[in-house]
Amino acid sequence: MAYGRLVVVRRIHVIGIGAGDPEQLTLQAVRALRSTDVFFVLDKGEVKSDLTRLRRDMLDTHLPEGGYRVVEARDPERDRRAGGAAYSPAVGDWRSARAGIYERLIAEELGEDESGAFLVWGDPALYDSTLGILEEVLAAGTVAFTYDVVPGVSSVSALVARHRTGLNRVARPVQITTGRRLAEGFPEGVDDVVVMLDAHQTFRQYAEDDIDIYWGAYIGTPDEILVAGPIAEAGPRIERLRAEARERKGWIMDTYLLRRNPGER
Amino acid sequence: MAYGRLVVVRRIHVIGIGAGDPEQLTLQAVRALRSTDVFFVLDKGEVKSDLTRLRRDMLDTHLPEGGYRVVEARDPERDRRAGGAAYSPAVGDWRSARAGIYERLIAEELGEDESGAFLVWGDPALYDSTLGILEEVLAAGTVAFTYDVVPGVSSVSALVARHRTGLNRVARPVQITTGRRLAEGFPEGVDDVVVMLDAHQTFRQYAEDDIDIYWGAYIGTPDEILVAGPIAEAGPRIERLRAEARERKGWIMDTYLLRRNPGER
Ligand SMILES: C[S@@+](CC[C@H](N)C(=O)[O-])C[C@H]1O[C@@H](n2cnc3c(N)ncnc32)[C@H](O)[C@@H]1O
Ligand SMILES: C[S@@+](CC[C@H](N)C(=O)[O-])C[C@H]1O[C@@H](n2cnc3c(N)ncnc32)[C@H](O)[C@@H]1O
Repeated sequence: MAYGRLVVVRRIHVIGIGAGDPEQLTLQAVRALRSTDVFFVLDKGEVKSDLTRLRRDMLDTHLPEGGYRVVEARDPERDRRAGGAAYSPAVGDWRSARAGIYERLIAEELGEDESGAFLVWGDPALYDSTLGILEEVLAAGTVAFTYDVVPGVSSVSALVARHRTGLNRVARPVQITTGRRLAEGFPEGVDDVVVMLDAHQTFRQYAEDDIDIYWGAYIGTPDEILVAGPIAEAGPRIERLRAEARERKGWIMDTYLLRRNPGER
Repeated sequence: MAYGRLVVVRRIHVIGIGAGDPEQLTLQAVRALRSTDVFFVLDKGEVKSDLTRLRRDMLDTHLPEGGYRVVEARDPERDRRAGGAAYSPAVGDWRSARAGIYERLIAEELGEDESGAFLVWGDPALYDSTLGILEEVLAAGTVAFTYDVVPGVSSVSALVARHRTGLNRVARPVQITTGRRLAEGFPEGVDDVVVMLDAHQTFRQYAEDDIDIYWGAYIGTPDEILVAGPIAEAGPRIERLRAEARERKGWIMDTYLLRRNPGER
């Protein structure tokens, strides 16, 4: 009976690295970083280069001895002009383009007995396409690998921690949604709503209602800005601060919780 | 001009410690543990002593040199028999009873220039009463302190990481709710729903629908159990495994994501 060579297979970690504060890495994430040979960094261009640098700094901090490779690729442009119903298909095309890039990166840059990693902002489970893309690559069947997911502190958790409030009220639900959805109406059946991916400050639509907003931008970074209060009062202040910060830095990431007075409705 | 003694004030950390895996602590949480003089542990009785031990083990791991105190108190019994509409008031009474205990603990066990900490499972923002109780104690005005919140990896993030899936589907919302709410009907306007605090396996109510369930118990601990599939198929298996585990350990903590096929409805 002959023993063949051990069957090896590429391993990939999808690592949630927290929303901006490098101290929000978990011990599990640090361990995963340390067991990684190749880091894949998809660059969105100059605008977000601050974020790419933050990731680099994390690697320098936790892998001071080096010994890893960083492979950068250019993220395909997403068609952000697509509006309304066209949103999902545009995302779909973009995901397929990304799947092609991921497939090539994994096949060409990762040795068969090596570990690769994708570093994901916040928690990989929230509005992030990495897991979906990896499943697409696996389904295509041209490159074999296994992967695991290291959960992270999401920007949602980071936001409410900084405001020292909860996501839900006692025994009640909370919904996490997008600016685009909020523009279609306040979600039904909930009074606590977290809004992400809102380029249009959709909360303004609800300035007449009895709703408190807990807003944060660049949460966990030295540029962090926090504002809370009734939308009618806090809203104009948020608009001003947001415009100034965006102008100054060239990009912004913000998230907010809307908490409606249950009397309202 | 005379310089008085520096005004000192008690400091409290509310620390999210992850859902069960001690490696899910963040670096920020470890730093907060290390700057704490007194840990407050509210014990729910023998049933959950596994959880109290897990916390103790964390302290031993990250503060091997000791130098801290642990103050234990008995958690007041919550009236779990209260049903339906009575739920919130019962929680309210229980919170006030807890507020009295927290107030005494802080006033009597924490020196004026010391730091105290409450260790919270998962993320302090999700279905946890610590922040609400501290606000109540502050509002009463009999003991002064400042506090901060260290966000943690919630059992929700841990659940979906283990199942290697996202919380939301592309550009769509997700709701986090309780078993009690789910019993009243499938939430409106969402197809992805995370259910916590469900003692009655309410998912069974939806076995006829085209819904996938991603279920996990004791997530992140050596007892972890994961099951996924259409409710109709996975449901009976979950019921059996859940009953066995609960019998064996004397307690259970489980969470699940329901993902409805959007065609349904
Ligand atoms: C593509 S999603 C990724 C979310 C990420 N996976 C998470 O768990 O936070 C990007 C959105 O997350 C939010 N976000 C991420 N990081 C943030 C930060 N540091 N401060 C404020 N919002 C942030 C913003 O709403 C942004 O539009
Ligand atoms: C009082 S809530 C606290 C939630 C916690 N703050 C969090 O962020 O996960 C308790 C509920 O959390 C869920 N849970 C907490 N830890 C869990 C674990 N290790 N495995 C499965 N479910 C868990 C269960 O649904 C349980 O009923």
